[in-house]
Amino acid sequence: MNEEQIRELLEAVRNGESSVAEAVSLLRKLPFKDIGFARLDTHRQLRRGFAEAIYCEGKTLEQIKGIIAALPDDGVPVLATRATPEVAQVIQQVRPDAVYHETARIVVVGKPAEPRSEHPVAILTAGTSDIPVAEEAAVTAEVMGNRVERLYDVGVAGIHRLLGDLDTIERAGVLIVIAGMDGALPSIVGGLAAVPVIAVPTSVGYGASFAGIAPLLTMLNSCAPGVAVVNIDNGFGAGYLATQINHRGL
Amino acid sequence: MNEEQIRELLEAVRNGESSVAEAVSLLRKLPFKDIGFARLDTHRQLRRGFAEAIYCEGKTLEQIKGIIAALPDDGVPVLATRATPEVAQVIQQVRPDAVYHETARIVVVGKPAEPRSEHPVAILTAGTSDIPVAEEAAVTAEVMGNRVERLYDVGVAGIHRLLGDLDTIERAGVLIVIAGMDGALPSIVGGLAAVPVIAVPTSVGYGASFAGIAPLLTMLNSCAPGVAVVNIDNGFGAGYLATQINHRGL
Amino acid sequence: MNEEQIRELLEAVRNGESSVAEAVSLLRKLPFKDIGFARLDTHRQLRRGFAEAIYCEGKTLEQIKGIIAALPDDGVPVLATRATPEVAQVIQQVRPDAVYHETARIVVVGKPAEPRSEHPVAILTAGTSDIPVAEEAAVTAEVMGNRVERLYDVGVAGIHRLLGDLDTIERAGVLIVIAGMDGALPSIVGGLAAVPVIAVPTSVGYGASFAGIAPLLTMLNSCAPGVAVVNIDNGFGAGYLATQINHRGL
Amino acid sequence: MNEEQIRELLEAVRNGESSVAEAVSLLRKLPFKDIGFARLDTHRQLRRGFAEAIYCEGKTLEQIKGIIAALPDDGVPVLATRATPEVAQVIQQVRPDAVYHETARIVVVGKPAEPRSEHPVAILTAGTSDIPVAEEAAVTAEVMGNRVERLYDVGVAGIHRLLGDLDTIERAGVLIVIAGMDGALPSIVGGLAAVPVIAVPTSVGYGASFAGIAPLLTMLNSCAPGVAVVNIDNGFGAGYLATQINHRGL
Amino acid sequence: MNEEQIRELLEAVRNGESSVAEAVSLLRKLPFKDIGFARLDTHRQLRRGFAEAIYCEGKTLEQIKGIIAALPDDGVPVLATRATPEVAQVIQQVRPDAVYHETARIVVVGKPAEPRSEHPVAILTAGTSDIPVAEEAAVTAEVMGNRVERLYDVGVAGIHRLLGDLDTIERAGVLIVIAGMDGALPSIVGGLAAVPVIAVPTSVGYGASFAGIAPLLTMLNSCAPGVAVVNIDNGFGAGYLATQINHRGL
Amino acid sequence: MNEEQIRELLEAVRNGESSVAEAVSLLRKLPFKDIGFARLDTHRQLRRGFAEAIYCEGKTLEQIKGIIAALPDDGVPVLATRATPEVAQVIQQVRPDAVYHETARIVVVGKPAEPRSEHPVAILTAGTSDIPVAEEAAVTAEVMGNRVERLYDVGVAGIHRLLGDLDTIERAGVLIVIAGMDGALPSIVGGLAAVPVIAVPTSVGYGASFAGIAPLLTMLNSCAPGVAVVNIDNGFGAGYLATQINHRGL
Amino acid sequence: MNEEQIRELLEAVRNGESSVAEAVSLLRKLPFKDIGFARLDTHRQLRRGFAEAIYCEGKTLEQIKGIIAALPDDGVPVLATRATPEVAQVIQQVRPDAVYHETARIVVVGKPAEPRSEHPVAILTAGTSDIPVAEEAAVTAEVMGNRVERLYDVGVAGIHRLLGDLDTIERAGVLIVIAGMDGALPSIVGGLAAVPVIAVPTSVGYGASFAGIAPLLTMLNSCAPGVAVVNIDNGFGAGYLATQINHRGL
Amino acid sequence: MNEEQIRELLEAVRNGESSVAEAVSLLRKLPFKDIGFARLDTHRQLRRGFAEAIYCEGKTLEQIKGIIAALPDDGVPVLATRATPEVAQVIQQVRPDAVYHETARIVVVGKPAEPRSEHPVAILTAGTSDIPVAEEAAVTAEVMGNRVERLYDVGVAGIHRLLGDLDTIERAGVLIVIAGMDGALPSIVGGLAAVPVIAVPTSVGYGASFAGIAPLLTMLNSCAPGVAVVNIDNGFGAGYLATQINHRGL
Repeated sequence: MNEEQIRELLEAVRNGESSVAEAVSLLRKLPFKDIGFARLDTHRQLRRGFAEAIYCEGKTLEQIKGIIAALPDDGVPVLATRATPEVAQVIQQVRPDAVYHETARIVVVGKPAEPRSEHPVAILTAGTSDIPVAEEAAVTAEVMGNRVERLYDVGVAGIHRLLGDLDTIERAGVLIVIAGMDGALPSIVGGLAAVPVIAVPTSVGYGASFAGIAPLLTMLNSCAPGVAVVNIDNGFGAGYLATQINHRGL
Repeated sequence: MNEEQIRELLEAVRNGESSVAEAVSLLRKLPFKDIGFARLDTHRQLRRGFAEAIYCEGKTLEQIKGIIAALPDDGVPVLATRATPEVAQVIQQVRPDAVYHETARIVVVGKPAEPRSEHPVAILTAGTSDIPVAEEAAVTAEVMGNRVERLYDVGVAGIHRLLGDLDTIERAGVLIVIAGMDGALPSIVGGLAAVPVIAVPTSVGYGASFAGIAPLLTMLNSCAPGVAVVNIDNGFGAGYLATQINHRGL
Repeated sequence: MNEEQIRELLEAVRNGESSVAEAVSLLRKLPFKDIGFARLDTHRQLRRGFAEAIYCEGKTLEQIKGIIAALPDDGVPVLATRATPEVAQVIQQVRPDAVYHETARIVVVGKPAEPRSEHPVAILTAGTSDIPVAEEAAVTAEVMGNRVERLYDVGVAGIHRLLGDLDTIERAGVLIVIAGMDGALPSIVGGLAAVPVIAVPTSVGYGASFAGIAPLLTMLNSCAPGVAVVNIDNGFGAGYLATQINHRGL
Repeated sequence: MNEEQIRELLEAVRNGESSVAEAVSLLRKLPFKDIGFARLDTHRQLRRGFAEAIYCEGKTLEQIKGIIAALPDDGVPVLATRATPEVAQVIQQVRPDAVYHETARIVVVGKPAEPRSEHPVAILTAGTSDIPVAEEAAVTAEVMGNRVERLYDVGVAGIHRLLGDLDTIERAGVLIVIAGMDGALPSIVGGLAAVPVIAVPTSVGYGASFAGIAPLLTMLNSCAPGVAVVNIDNGFGAGYLATQINHRGL
Repeated sequence: MNEEQIRELLEAVRNGESSVAEAVSLLRKLPFKDIGFARLDTHRQLRRGFAEAIYCEGKTLEQIKGIIAALPDDGVPVLATRATPEVAQVIQQVRPDAVYHETARIVVVGKPAEPRSEHPVAILTAGTSDIPVAEEAAVTAEVMGNRVERLYDVGVAGIHRLLGDLDTIERAGVLIVIAGMDGALPSIVGGLAAVPVIAVPTSVGYGASFAGIAPLLTMLNSCAPGVAVVNIDNGFGAGYLATQINHRGL
Repeated sequence: MNEEQIRELLEAVRNGESSVAEAVSLLRKLPFKDIGFARLDTHRQLRRGFAEAIYCEGKTLEQIKGIIAALPDDGVPVLATRATPEVAQVIQQVRPDAVYHETARIVVVGKPAEPRSEHPVAILTAGTSDIPVAEEAAVTAEVMGNRVERLYDVGVAGIHRLLGDLDTIERAGVLIVIAGMDGALPSIVGGLAAVPVIAVPTSVGYGASFAGIAPLLTMLNSCAPGVAVVNIDNGFGAGYLATQINHRGL
Repeated sequence: MNEEQIRELLEAVRNGESSVAEAVSLLRKLPFKDIGFARLDTHRQLRRGFAEAIYCEGKTLEQIKGIIAALPDDGVPVLATRATPEVAQVIQQVRPDAVYHETARIVVVGKPAEPRSEHPVAILTAGTSDIPVAEEAAVTAEVMGNRVERLYDVGVAGIHRLLGDLDTIERAGVLIVIAGMDGALPSIVGGLAAVPVIAVPTSVGYGASFAGIAPLLTMLNSCAPGVAVVNIDNGFGAGYLATQINHRGL
Repeated sequence: MNEEQIRELLEAVRNGESSVAEAVSLLRKLPFKDIGFARLDTHRQLRRGFAEAIYCEGKTLEQIKGIIAALPDDGVPVLATRATPEVAQVIQQVRPDAVYHETARIVVVGKPAEPRSEHPVAILTAGTSDIPVAEEAAVTAEVMGNRVERLYDVGVAGIHRLLGDLDTIERAGVLIVIAGMDGALPSIVGGLAAVPVIAVPTSVGYGASFAGIAPLLTMLNSCAPGVAVVNIDNGFGAGYLATQINHRGL
């Protein structure tokens, strides 16, 4: 039941076409269900310009195709994350304009939003094997309306590489810092930066890195304030949150 | 070596008072050390208006007194966190204007910053026993220049309490959501809100909550994007990060 | 806004005292907030005969006193769980009829409900040190309207003790089985019983029982179907759930 | 030794065909062994109408075929769980009436029991990838004599979807709530429902969900009473327990 | 119902004082319950010469006193383990002949059994802080009828100490090897000995020994066959099992 | 240097063919190295009748072939454990008399030892999927000189099956009890038996059994004394230890 | 900006071609960035004679080829670690002099450094399956300028093998001790040796060795001082650290 | 049996005072036992100049006093670690020259060794609460013959502090780097230094630092080679190992 229907109901009451008792009964059933759908719209409204996202892992090609086909072509870009080349092909059958970002494992359907902040989102990685997660964050942030600066392979074992590029850190509106193994990079960046740092642990590593637990704990225990952590390998979540932060006050 | 000294050295070179070789040798030793101190100032500059913070747990009363006494009285407020009543007394001996927030376990020295954003920082807790952590976040955010709205005891076992106060969520510039036990609240708030959610797991709980591990994992695995996590019981870190986000673009 | 108020609003619309636009505007704001309170009542209605419960651990004596004083004396019994003797004294100041069950660590305020099922709730423990958790479950179930049969210290290391009392298992409408250390008892009872088994791991134990993790895992891995697990030491939860099951179909 | 044989022995004693000493000796050896078998029958009796179940994972096709062939065709339906299509084919060779439920990974041999309760078992999932576990629970409950209502993909990140379907929750005799990742759904449903909630964590997820540990801990720590937990991915166990609860008092 | 009663029942049948139907009915109810008690006796019989044991931790002084007073003074020695000096005093009030072994934290009531094997039980510890656990094992083994040889503080960091006393290892009928920290001693002893090695991890240690988990894992992973592990700090269990092994074939 | 050589050296000293200084020098170098080999022999002597064992997992076919070929054909049987059919074929090329036990994954080279104890080793499993581990234990025990009685699929969910076969437990000289999932069987058997119980957790299971951690913890926490635990899936270790125990006093 | 450029700038200042202000401005920007590169050179200088290392796992063949091609052929040997045979082939296309060490999984490009210490690096393993990790350490140490002595398969279950070769331990300048499963070897070697012991846990094992956690904990808890631990399976790290220690004071 | 006694035995053989058989018998028993003691001496010899150490935690005052009194006053300094003020007093009763280092919790008995290397041992901490562990390492290293340079509170959240003191890192012969919480400091120092880095995790911290597990994992996963880890809080072990490394080649 939408606003239109509520209005009609009220007019029926005013016109005597509906009794007060009937109206009360209808309205009692309304709240959660219909407001539920109402809120959905409100939310979509609030988030205008943001991307829809589909997590592809664990969905069949058929299911993904169906979801893409059912989405309205309303100008809001769609991100299909964790997408294999096969997923990309299937999506391109339905939406030939879809673009596949292979390293990021993302298919983008529709036109990315225009950058809304003068500050870029800076994305740093400790190693080269963290790049797929970084690209997932980067493509997400770009599609949602941010300029992105990439600073890859600046891990703490060679701290001079990071220190040689402090400008990038200082320019950024928000930082995404990605690391596996010892996960120490966000702590150092947090100590150097004046803006929020989103730390992303990666499952890259061997030995006692335990598929991301070691860098996750390191990041949670960061001695620098201003550092928050998202799930292991969650590049999409980092890019999404970075957008929310970077668009603040706009 | 500061800028003044570099200038003097260069003039000595120009004047022939110093050879190029001598100057090269001096400059080779310079970078990290002196720039180190230089950067320190820059940072303080960048963060002007932010609070200094002293983590009191594990420090002796004597040490805390010494640190407080040594801080410049430059208008920047100082937060002494995890402070017992004894710590508060000792600080008040040195700085009689210090104010003790007992539930938050924080001593504030100096005048809190003026709110700089029209949006409040909203702080939600699942239960009443999460309130000390919430107050640590609240006092931190207030001292660093934010208005704070508190919405306590709105845990998911009685979801109607949360739904009855959606306005608070919608007004906020950033949300801090604090929960122990099942840690489910940030997921729901993340699904309702359009601004960043900082999730804080608390060590409150019993049985298999394992001093905060259970809600920590819940929060990291939140199905709602836009949720980031800080360390268990880390109210200060949440308040600090919330400030960085809430002051973005200002 | 309750039903009465909705009715008045509708009549105002019918009478022309309120415009449709005004009414729509009022109704749009209503749903979550007021329905929130409405649902609360509905729930209380549905659960009539059930107990209110206050978890005392981590609350101050002052807080507990305040909560008890604020509760309506409407015949619904109140359980104050994890209550120390001091808590009991404080409650008895406000409600002199309160009864303290020391082993169960529960204060009962008000009159327990009458048993509603012909089947008792049977509560078994593996050892004697599991008895406090068992009594928490037992008092909870009794107050909420069940007869309780206790069968304590029938652990698997002396299986003959259990087998000597099969009648109790067969009579019960639902079983609560409590064990620490190896946590094996629910598996065996689950294999013998035809009714649901609620397994409660306890933190009783030493060595590699890890404060209840060992029996918790044992119970989750029970090879007998019909066994569900609640949190470590959660006697109240077990008693509550047992009541819901035992009152089914009544 | 069955009742018949005991009777014969006693008559032999009465007739003097057997001495008291001989009879004592025979009876001393009897109890556990023969009563063992006796109990087996009793149990089967008690559970009449319930299904037999075979867990197929880790059994060879040959073994499964043998077990199915050996089962009496006595009207009690048989559930072969975790069955691959190959398992289904093998079973259908022996019992051509067997039906394969592919998503549930269950083969049902024989006729499902008639629904015995007016209340349905309601099964909710947080996401679409939880559906295989949900279907395992659903088919189990249906075969054991329940109507099932499915409410899939109503996770907490979009709480309006759940709130839009409260009727299903209110109609149910018992609820099975299935979730991976943050595992928060059972807490919310537990707060809304007046009947028992069986929570099933799933191994669906990535990052720090650790193959189901994260939602398992969330569910064990649920702040809502009336929630019990079964093993990770254990749809069969949930369906079985739901039946025991839903048939209570019938 | 004991053998005597079965005999009487059978004679009543033979005499016609009881019908066959009545006897069947009585016997049907008998097995588990009464055989339960019967088995208890049988077991006691089988274990004649073994000690009764009471685990004192978590029992009140009153409870312990009651249990001791209720035990028959039948020559079987009683071990009260994890006993504080207060426990010892209380026991000595009831049984003045009780002896308190302070380091072992055991009170022995009654006369220890005579050694039954020519081979001693050899007990080795890695460090001096493992001695309380070792003494618990030693006193248990002595009371249950074994000679004990102690070889303490022969940890692997000074392997020469162990190698200097190989005779003890070679003489023993069974070995109990106790270690905290790295828990490496049982592996080496297992490689040198031809008899079973019972490994006992202790919670002694600091850093990453995690209250006994580190040595527990070491011992479970021992590369030497013939090593079995009991619970952390479980000296009693080790002494009991050592007796069972040392008395084999006697 | 063997005893013969020491004797020759001493005679050379006595005959003046070697100086004391030369002999001292030779003897100084001797101890560890040569006694090393001497001990090896001594050990082999002590363990005469025991089997050699080769753990095949992680070794190449070439390596296994080489080891088998290098072993002396001295009547001592050799066990190649964790052997695939390919391993069996390779061994049979070198030793055509080798026998492959497929379920046990063991190749036996040479003639098993004669049973040396009148008591069998009884091997119990909770489920059918524990059988490979049980067979590894059984073949090991048989080859090392024991009669073995198998009692499979007697898990605690159907306790009557176990109680129906108490004779096996009572006849045994030592018990090996194997279980995955809840791992509860050894606790019950330990309560019924008067001889040592070797508990073997298996990695069989799903959900929260965590590849054997759950049953491992259950077994370590067994409330029945006389239970010791070996590594997860370590059938060979259990069979070896059972032999050491069963041959005690012979 | 390198030293040459600084010199030119200073000469421009001296010659009046550049103003002091301009020079200050240039120098202000210099430190981190350019000194960054400067330090890199310095470091390379300090480490002259050390090897460059490329971790191949997780890099594409194309990436590895590119890195190798880009490295200067300056006499410093290059180690490509965790290299498959395919990686070796690709490297040999670019650098035909590359040598593949298959067991060590290392490709060495360029000429190994000459041994610089009279003491060898001794590398011990507990088992044969630890050899790949040992060879990674051995080849690393050899290429970086050490003689290596190998002592494999001297685990604690047969301590005589280790004691038979004490000379190797005494000759060494530093020891690398590698073990899986119980990880006990470094403790014993640490007790015998007077030089540093680098302990390397391996993921070799089964059951409760948990992919290296068990030996890792054992080694961290080593009772012998002078033992330090590197990551699980980290042969390269051990070889590198051993070189740093063995070249100390040279 | 020492060399002297072997010589006498051989002369007895030569003189005919002892038969060859008698000598063989005596020599057979000798190796392990007496070589054991012999090796002890050898070791003491090799380690001359090193300190004896007594770990006081878990020892009674009486025991510590006894050990100190029994030690020879041979110029080798003695370290009593984890010593409370009470322990210090007791030791000073026996050895009035004993010096108590309160922060380090060490009592030093006897004269520290002279520094033997021109390079200092540099000890860095991330925070001020790591200082007790650092001082334990520092006093150990000083007593064992090293100059120590302390660089405290240079954690990664303020990287400029570390970079401002690079000289200390470059001068050192070996580095001990101590950190709790995120444990990131050793990774950065390892990237800057050319000498071995001994990383010490501390149990200082809160939230998800888990009493040192978080920094321990960080350090094990350090991306910089040349970093090895000792146990949590193990300052003594770090100081001991640093000495072994710093004295290499001297």
